[in-house]
Amino acid sequence: MGSSALCHYSIKKGAAFLGLGTDSVRVVKADERGKMIPEDLERQICLAKAEGAVPFLVSATSGTTVLGAFDPLEAVADVCQRHGLWLHVDAAWGGSALLSQTHRHLLDGIHRADSVAWNPHKLLAAGLQCSALLLRDTTNLLKHCHGSQASYLFQQDKFYDVALDTGDKVVQCGRRVDCLKLWLMWKAQGGQGLERRVDQAFALARYLVEEMKKREGFELVMEPEFVNVCFWFLPPSLRGEQKSLDYSERLAKVAPVLKERMVKEGSMMIGYQPHGTRGNFFRMIVANPALTQADMRFLLDELERLGQDL
Amino acid sequence: MGSSALCHYSIKKGAAFLGLGTDSVRVVKADERGKMIPEDLERQICLAKAEGAVPFLVSATSGTTVLGAFDPLEAVADVCQRHGLWLHVDAAWGGSALLSQTHRHLLDGIHRADSVAWNPHKLLAAGLQCSALLLRDTTNLLKHCHGSQASYLFQQDKFYDVALDTGDKVVQCGRRVDCLKLWLMWKAQGGQGLERRVDQAFALARYLVEEMKKREGFELVMEPEFVNVCFWFLPPSLRGEQKSLDYSERLAKVAPVLKERMVKEGSMMIGYQPHGTRGNFFRMIVANPALTQADMRFLLDELERLGQDL
Repeated sequence: MGSSALCHYSIKKGAAFLGLGTDSVRVVKADERGKMIPEDLERQICLAKAEGAVPFLVSATSGTTVLGAFDPLEAVADVCQRHGLWLHVDAAWGGSALLSQTHRHLLDGIHRADSVAWNPHKLLAAGLQCSALLLRDTTNLLKHCHGSQASYLFQQDKFYDVALDTGDKVVQCGRRVDCLKLWLMWKAQGGQGLERRVDQAFALARYLVEEMKKREGFELVMEPEFVNVCFWFLPPSLRGEQKSLDYSERLAKVAPVLKERMVKEGSMMIGYQPHGTRGNFFRMIVANPALTQADMRFLLDELERLGQDL
Repeated sequence: MGSSALCHYSIKKGAAFLGLGTDSVRVVKADERGKMIPEDLERQICLAKAEGAVPFLVSATSGTTVLGAFDPLEAVADVCQRHGLWLHVDAAWGGSALLSQTHRHLLDGIHRADSVAWNPHKLLAAGLQCSALLLRDTTNLLKHCHGSQASYLFQQDKFYDVALDTGDKVVQCGRRVDCLKLWLMWKAQGGQGLERRVDQAFALARYLVEEMKKREGFELVMEPEFVNVCFWFLPPSLRGEQKSLDYSERLAKVAPVLKERMVKEGSMMIGYQPHGTRGNFFRMIVANPALTQADMRFLLDELERLGQDL
């Protein structure tokens, strides 16, 4: 099992849960933008084989949680093909970009995946939870994996084609029909409506970035390629102090204070986190289709107001 | 891992999913009412140990899916105590009986369990999904098991006690706050309101049983001790035919036909299943607090109407 250093933590968690153990997950190097390095993937696969391990799955990420990075799927798929490995794409966050003609190129190569995970409850704002697992396999793989044929629940002597019953394919038993939410939303909004949602999120993220550049209290972690806008707020006391020895330490303490203030005031909620060697920075995600440019300006004004005495 | 022959299929599924394998689940014998036989449990534990296996968990069931049977928890707990085994009680279905002063005796001994699973979305009719796992352990066991300390999601530098954050304890990542539904319902209905719900379900099930006994077309699988009313509908052509050689075979074909008819008419939905050596029988569950005795009579009238030509 190989995955990038910036993959979602659920990959290791899943390996633990399945009894494979977290050590069976090999972490592949990512570049400074958070994208998996295909050359390192191939190196790790060869290394694992040399050690007697049996690699079987590569999990690439389309839209990492913090930076919103897209792994280079074509190159990763080439590696998987050479070594006969299952290619899984965790597109939980970024998969919705496929609905946009303008932005779908971020996922070029996803058609070569053996399995894809996608959460319409993220960028498309379908109600929690709405998760899809798409498989290339057409032999009813999930049934082979999870089917338990409990005769008291999954009766076979019905008057319709029981292949339509999906209950025995899933891990859980009693669960909501999550796909109905997506289906209804799709019917109501149309493909174009969903595309507009995606395009608008990209456009608002871009607007937010441009507005930040006009103000002296904001520093981008990097230019976003997706809708994750990662930035530091620099309070007045830290501006121009970039060269002082304790700058990073002091900067890392800013986001928690601002988060506390915004939560207590009830004005907004923006998550923050450290990441690699970077201290706490905010990660603003624009997914709500009702948001406007005015909301983006409010966000910046509010951070300036809450942090003016720091 | 020991479990009764009538345990929910999720026990075996869970063993498969965790990498233990389904063979590690030893099936303990149940009596004719579906209750685990504690003497057989002890025999199986000794047998497993003699074979070099290391038993570690017994899963008892409070309210089996089909018959609604309650395992004798005091006797099962005695066995677990003697052998130092973890006692899990699957009270997903029957746990709500604890809210009733009249019926809680069905779960006598549950206070000795190490863990209990309970689904308020079943008998209490909380919205799907609402599942609780109750643990005797107070050392934050779920965090030890599932915690992944993903620093980008579970920040520790917050202004409140981060022990209140439950996200890192669970298997999934993004998920709904299911307990809110239960909390709101409890606040709205009160303990007495929930008790009334449980007592009413028992009373309606009892009413249905008594009404069935007055009609010639119905045969109980057994007297229910819970709210599962298991019965066969005997169409006119089968009445008095109990001694014919193909009676069981013909009887087993009745429920699927009636189910098809009720589904197509849209008048009601009652599940059926075979169980052990018993052919297809209906299992009527009265959980909706809005149901009345008139609904129970409608159910019987409708089955008679739909099956009069069979």
